[in-house]
Amino acid sequence: MKNNRWLLPEGIEEALPDKAWQLELLRRQLLDLFDSWGYDLVMPPFIEYLESLLVATGNDLDLQTFKLTDQLTGRMMGVRADMTPQVARIDARHLDSTAPSRLCYLGTVLHTRPDGFAGSRSLLQVGAELYGHAGIESDVEVLSLMLDTLGQVGIEQPYLDLGHVGIYRALVAQAGLTRLQEEDLFDALQRKARPELTALLDSMALDDAVAEMLNALAELNGSTEVMAAARSAFRAASDELNAALENLDAIARLLQQQRPDLRLHYDLAELRGYNYHTGAVFAAYVPGHGQAIAQGGRYDGIGEAFGKSRPATGFSTDLRTLALLGGVVNRKQAGILAPAGDDTDLQNKIRSLRASGERVIVALPGQQGKARDMQCDRQLIKTEQGWIVETA
Amino acid sequence: MKNNRWLLPEGIEEALPDKAWQLELLRRQLLDLFDSWGYDLVMPPFIEYLESLLVATGNDLDLQTFKLTDQLTGRMMGVRADMTPQVARIDARHLDSTAPSRLCYLGTVLHTRPDGFAGSRSLLQVGAELYGHAGIESDVEVLSLMLDTLGQVGIEQPYLDLGHVGIYRALVAQAGLTRLQEEDLFDALQRKARPELTALLDSMALDDAVAEMLNALAELNGSTEVMAAARSAFRAASDELNAALENLDAIARLLQQQRPDLRLHYDLAELRGYNYHTGAVFAAYVPGHGQAIAQGGRYDGIGEAFGKSRPATGFSTDLRTLALLGGVVNRKQAGILAPAGDDTDLQNKIRSLRASGERVIVALPGQQGKARDMQCDRQLIKTEQGWIVETA
Repeated sequence: MKNNRWLLPEGIEEALPDKAWQLELLRRQLLDLFDSWGYDLVMPPFIEYLESLLVATGNDLDLQTFKLTDQLTGRMMGVRADMTPQVARIDARHLDSTAPSRLCYLGTVLHTRPDGFAGSRSLLQVGAELYGHAGIESDVEVLSLMLDTLGQVGIEQPYLDLGHVGIYRALVAQAGLTRLQEEDLFDALQRKARPELTALLDSMALDDAVAEMLNALAELNGSTEVMAAARSAFRAASDELNAALENLDAIARLLQQQRPDLRLHYDLAELRGYNYHTGAVFAAYVPGHGQAIAQGGRYDGIGEAFGKSRPATGFSTDLRTLALLGGVVNRKQAGILAPAGDDTDLQNKIRSLRASGERVIVALPGQQGKARDMQCDRQLIKTEQGWIVETA
Repeated sequence: MKNNRWLLPEGIEEALPDKAWQLELLRRQLLDLFDSWGYDLVMPPFIEYLESLLVATGNDLDLQTFKLTDQLTGRMMGVRADMTPQVARIDARHLDSTAPSRLCYLGTVLHTRPDGFAGSRSLLQVGAELYGHAGIESDVEVLSLMLDTLGQVGIEQPYLDLGHVGIYRALVAQAGLTRLQEEDLFDALQRKARPELTALLDSMALDDAVAEMLNALAELNGSTEVMAAARSAFRAASDELNAALENLDAIARLLQQQRPDLRLHYDLAELRGYNYHTGAVFAAYVPGHGQAIAQGGRYDGIGEAFGKSRPATGFSTDLRTLALLGGVVNRKQAGILAPAGDDTDLQNKIRSLRASGERVIVALPGQQGKARDMQCDRQLIKTEQGWIVETA
């Protein structure tokens, strides 16, 4: 065991100097961007009691959550695997306001098994949430902020996938499906397994019109023509379904109006986060990257378990993925090597250079390595005019 | 259980908007300060295999470490309770240099039980480490950086406690103590329990001169006069002890020369981190705060378990403690409320205000709350001259 003490567990990441500084700069850019949109930073705790972490989130998150025993109480705690429920708790418990709340966050989340972004188990989740408004303007604001977030790292033209979980929910209600049937259909739809879907629908002995609509759902993906096709396919649908469809259409049109160049893609069978989402859902993609690079949607009422139910919408992404797609920023070789010594003028010179934003590294007596080995392109030299900086 | 879903486990902290932004700004200030001294940021992982986390750290850290099972391998992992061994691993395994390495870090560490800084179990540990130099200049550099770190949050005049674990180690060697005797004495010394210490020393039947020196150790704390008293008390000491004493004296003198106003306090029985420290150890205090607010010391050879043994010295502190002592920075009430709308001029105005560093919040149709409820002191108004910002 001794020889591989330095190996990290699979999917657990660390960042060495160049990468770490890139992540730090990106962190600052994104938090400043969120701040300029009025989103207040919060820092939820790394661990919480399990029942807080897993509110309204479904079984998947439970399986992804590392469990710990609290030695002080014997109660079970979890390491956060998603910060969204934590931020919802903060809105519900701590923000005493009926006005909309805008919150953002950035931090490590851990998963028991690799999934999603690049098979990692340690994501640097970053996201923004808007509570207290149910209209399309808040969906569009969150979508716009997500697109600006991607733009910040140079991803100007992502593909945006739009869906609405209300459509499938309305069909399930209209068909009167059992919970088990709903789950089987959900599985088949997510995999877009058409023959399996048709066989499933046949076996359920549904009303013909409803079966046809559920079958059509898997086909309803593509460009703007999808909305017309959906209206035609869902002629016999409930008011609930039509309301979901019109909601999605209104969001798409407002967004497209603000961003005419945006590449919109509709996928009405996309049910990302079906367990807790309640309205429009969306995800951004770039060519060559199989996973969504950012995602989100509406999840009204998540705060109910914490005592305050409000409309909610938000998005999240992974800072490491953005850093990877944004390209490595090579740290400039820019530092000043200074000799060690107790010369007061030298000490003052070093202090003022540092205060002005320069990096000054003091050479330690007898050390190995010259200026270039210390990433220094300049050095401090004593002249008759005092200490000056010259090229190393 | 439902009604207290929002309660956090004892000693587990979160930060709401004002506090979170204060911590974020402080984070940036400190990482920029470290960068200006040539310290490269690294981001060690949140969890690692236990045998990596607990290298050369002793039993205390083991007890403070939350344990997790890696579902992929069945091996035991730990949540980091101290980032120093992680940074040592990074220096030993990843930095292919014989020149000194300067590394810094900032992140959450968790403890199974409350201790140290304000009874918390979730510290925001921040620190800096210098590898590859054994001379007093590196001890003094790390001490100076620690003092500048405190100065950054307005703590200009901390008390600095200086000790050197080499003194006690040399006495233990000279006395030929067993491991058990060494531990018993250590306990009594840490508590400065004089009668217990004397009784213990009597029971050990040591050489008179050595017993006298061990007894004297508990008294050797105070101002600069301590060094003279130590030289007198340790006349019969080994060369090893004298070397440790001279090392401590040289560090103190170089530091005092650079910072004549510094309030130095010696405590030769202070054995902070005795398990892994090898030389000078230090801690900073402020009146009214019982715990050290920052601490560190020399710990040569920690990288040996990872395949590269180098001299090392460093310090760490807790960002929340610094934020607390530095005083709350009240977030200014400064934002611009803009109406919702698809007016292109309005959209452009909002975009340019945000890009210039302003916070612009868009009022959502039908929302509750006016400008002041949204922490906005100004608003965007349409005039004949276009959109202008006016006081709200």
